[in-house]
Amino acid sequence: LVSTGTARPAGGVDGILPTLRAIVGEQGWTDDPAKLAPHLSEWRGRVVGRTPLMLQPSTTEQVAAIVRTCAEARVAIVPQGGNTGMCAGAVPDASGAQILVQLGRLDRIRDVNVEDASLVAEAGCVLADVKSAACAAGLYFPLSLSAEGSCQIGGNVATNAGGINVLRYGTMRDLVLGLEAVLPDGSVLDNLRTLRKNTAGYDLKQLFVGSEGTLGIVTAVAVKLYPDPGPLQTAMLALDHAGAAVLALAKLRERMPDRLLAFELIGARPMDFVLRHIPAARNPFDLRYEWYVLLDAAVPAAELESALIDLAAQQRIADAVVAKSHAEQTALWRLRHSISEAERREGPGIKHDISVPVGAIQEFLDAAEERLRARVPQAEAVVFGHVGDGNLHYNAHLRRDVPDADLGRLGDELTRAIYELVTEMGGSISAEHGIGVLKKEALRRYGNPVALAAMRTLKAALDPAGIMNPGKVI
Amino acid sequence: LVSTGTARPAGGVDGILPTLRAIVGEQGWTDDPAKLAPHLSEWRGRVVGRTPLMLQPSTTEQVAAIVRTCAEARVAIVPQGGNTGMCAGAVPDASGAQILVQLGRLDRIRDVNVEDASLVAEAGCVLADVKSAACAAGLYFPLSLSAEGSCQIGGNVATNAGGINVLRYGTMRDLVLGLEAVLPDGSVLDNLRTLRKNTAGYDLKQLFVGSEGTLGIVTAVAVKLYPDPGPLQTAMLALDHAGAAVLALAKLRERMPDRLLAFELIGARPMDFVLRHIPAARNPFDLRYEWYVLLDAAVPAAELESALIDLAAQQRIADAVVAKSHAEQTALWRLRHSISEAERREGPGIKHDISVPVGAIQEFLDAAEERLRARVPQAEAVVFGHVGDGNLHYNAHLRRDVPDADLGRLGDELTRAIYELVTEMGGSISAEHGIGVLKKEALRRYGNPVALAAMRTLKAALDPAGIMNPGKVI
Repeated sequence: LVSTGTARPAGGVDGILPTLRAIVGEQGWTDDPAKLAPHLSEWRGRVVGRTPLMLQPSTTEQVAAIVRTCAEARVAIVPQGGNTGMCAGAVPDASGAQILVQLGRLDRIRDVNVEDASLVAEAGCVLADVKSAACAAGLYFPLSLSAEGSCQIGGNVATNAGGINVLRYGTMRDLVLGLEAVLPDGSVLDNLRTLRKNTAGYDLKQLFVGSEGTLGIVTAVAVKLYPDPGPLQTAMLALDHAGAAVLALAKLRERMPDRLLAFELIGARPMDFVLRHIPAARNPFDLRYEWYVLLDAAVPAAELESALIDLAAQQRIADAVVAKSHAEQTALWRLRHSISEAERREGPGIKHDISVPVGAIQEFLDAAEERLRARVPQAEAVVFGHVGDGNLHYNAHLRRDVPDADLGRLGDELTRAIYELVTEMGGSISAEHGIGVLKKEALRRYGNPVALAAMRTLKAALDPAGIMNPGKVI
Repeated sequence: LVSTGTARPAGGVDGILPTLRAIVGEQGWTDDPAKLAPHLSEWRGRVVGRTPLMLQPSTTEQVAAIVRTCAEARVAIVPQGGNTGMCAGAVPDASGAQILVQLGRLDRIRDVNVEDASLVAEAGCVLADVKSAACAAGLYFPLSLSAEGSCQIGGNVATNAGGINVLRYGTMRDLVLGLEAVLPDGSVLDNLRTLRKNTAGYDLKQLFVGSEGTLGIVTAVAVKLYPDPGPLQTAMLALDHAGAAVLALAKLRERMPDRLLAFELIGARPMDFVLRHIPAARNPFDLRYEWYVLLDAAVPAAELESALIDLAAQQRIADAVVAKSHAEQTALWRLRHSISEAERREGPGIKHDISVPVGAIQEFLDAAEERLRARVPQAEAVVFGHVGDGNLHYNAHLRRDVPDADLGRLGDELTRAIYELVTEMGGSISAEHGIGVLKKEALRRYGNPVALAAMRTLKAALDPAGIMNPGKVI
């Protein structure tokens, strides 16, 4: 367990608990340990915190009143959405002095505007519900990730969520038109406009996207909707090396520009884990290949099939299957979405969510393998990711014969090897998972000092008392 | 003439001039009034400033040394690119105490990476040259605006430039992958990465996009390139009312999703001005219509023609012409790109660069006409803009029989009427032209007070001595 280490003296907390409870009313708070438990622990159990009180406000005004109260008493606040983050950015520290503000009851879709192709959702709306609301209006909200059934749109904003459709539609930042946020002094920034263009002063919403609740609490967001891309075809490709995926992507993009919505790389090991641990998972091919690609394309089936036949004829891919039914599509995507769960069942792994320039993916994989062989030969890389945006989940498991006593040291050495390589290649140590608590030390070590200083300046300026999710990010 | 009013005491300037000259060398500075003149005046001559010295650094290190020197002496700096801005954000004030830093010699394309679909350009590269460099590599940089032959990419970043292809590719913000900037203390923020995904801390580059040189000087930028969209068809539509343009856009987008690159609305009056003042301009139709649309589509000519024939048959448009040659395309686009020049020749006008939600364009035009009729009946609206992103250049000319003594008062009343309406409708008083000096007072009046306070907090935190383009934006 990692205990987050930035506790403040608990002095002020107890005194404001009655005020905080009164702000939200009986339905809006709990200090019942059983009800608190799932909110205090990061989902893999790597960080467990404490809180005297979890608040579940149901209006923006309640959030503002909570923040004002905490600001006056200089009590720290931890905002939380669906608690599906990968870096423990949404759980309180171990001090028991941080108030948890869970946004799940701020769950109204405030508006869907077809003419304007926009939607306004409160922070606590589950991503899948936002997608459904867009769909019901005949439009499409593209953000898509494994946690979409439980993650919340406010958390997606706070972490600048990525996922499988970034290739075509960008990350959450690209989808946000406006937002409403409660600032660290309790004032409400109403920036909920749906304008496509606005240069009237600094674009403040950008500050909140990806700042993980450290600069304020996002309470609602206006997002872009897109035309329904039409029926999607799903295919899986089999490849002998990862570089073939980059080339296959380039070839397919030429043939169907803007119609490729997802292009996911899966290595042999994560596929093995899924086939081993996930009930009813099965390899769509008769053979085990070194690499697989899972793709969605908004083109007629015949067009995709003909493109894949050409790729195979040119020996650019080893094999391919196209899903023939919705059930087959679901089964293929289940392989991808089960990887994290399968990894968890396989045993403790070391996770990295890195990105490099798209053109450098094969170079990165070759260099990473070489460094691991030299520095941590006991490690086996477990690699999957998003070819189109250079984002690889470069995870690793240590062989089962490694003595328990060596696990920590070897894991650290492995992470150092990967992060050093990423940094040398101009990449990022966190492509889509954010920093939270778990990567804070890494950001300090590998981040650009001028950038880190500017981040600290921003944090100090907007949250001078340091009450907003302290101990996270910077 | 408007004189920008935030001069500081000139005490420190003279003392550092020798140091500043030494930093850039003989080729890099001038105080010759004739050479300075075009850099001291906004292009319409509405703001004219003074400076003791214009510096033209040729490296990022020189820019950093300039800023460090000015920061120590607390001397103000005004960064300038192509000086094509619409709000006088790039000219010094009248005090003669501000150093002008013109980026035109920082003009190298540092890298074009085809595999990665990215390009790195120094701030002083002319936009047209960046587009050519992308083209030479078989790729496409979509930012396109009337000033592209003289505006510079650093200025495009600083103002979050828009233009005609925002419909398909977004504004400059959407095209920036990374940037290099000199901060107000002279430190260099090297954020020049080409990553498609990065959540390692706050996304600092967003701060500099659209902040008009008030938070630092952008010295280089990494941008996204796109596949060449292929041959473009250009057409002009004739319409009886502006709402028909919104509907025509929706219909065409259904038929050719992602293939419509530009969709520009032009009212009858700006078209009249162009036909009157621009040599060789001619109306492609035999009749004068109330509204025109100019569009670019990356589809085969037959596909566009058939779509337009259907729109005409459904009486959604009154007429249409498709350019049959590159010369005809150029002639049609020249009508659009000549509007500002034609307006200037027509006489003094009142300019507004506003945006509303896309679905509300017709509602805005109707309400604006009504308010003008009631409040400034002497005004004639001159409207053109970008249908796809809700951005209208809602300009106006006062009738020639208005006495000179009334021009100022009526102009102010007209602007108030438009800005009040825009604000009521959740729109922006500056869609793509920024704030600069000319709209600073309007931002103060119509801006959200919480947002303005947050902007001032950011400015004070990042530029505590207030040396970066003081008197602009906020």
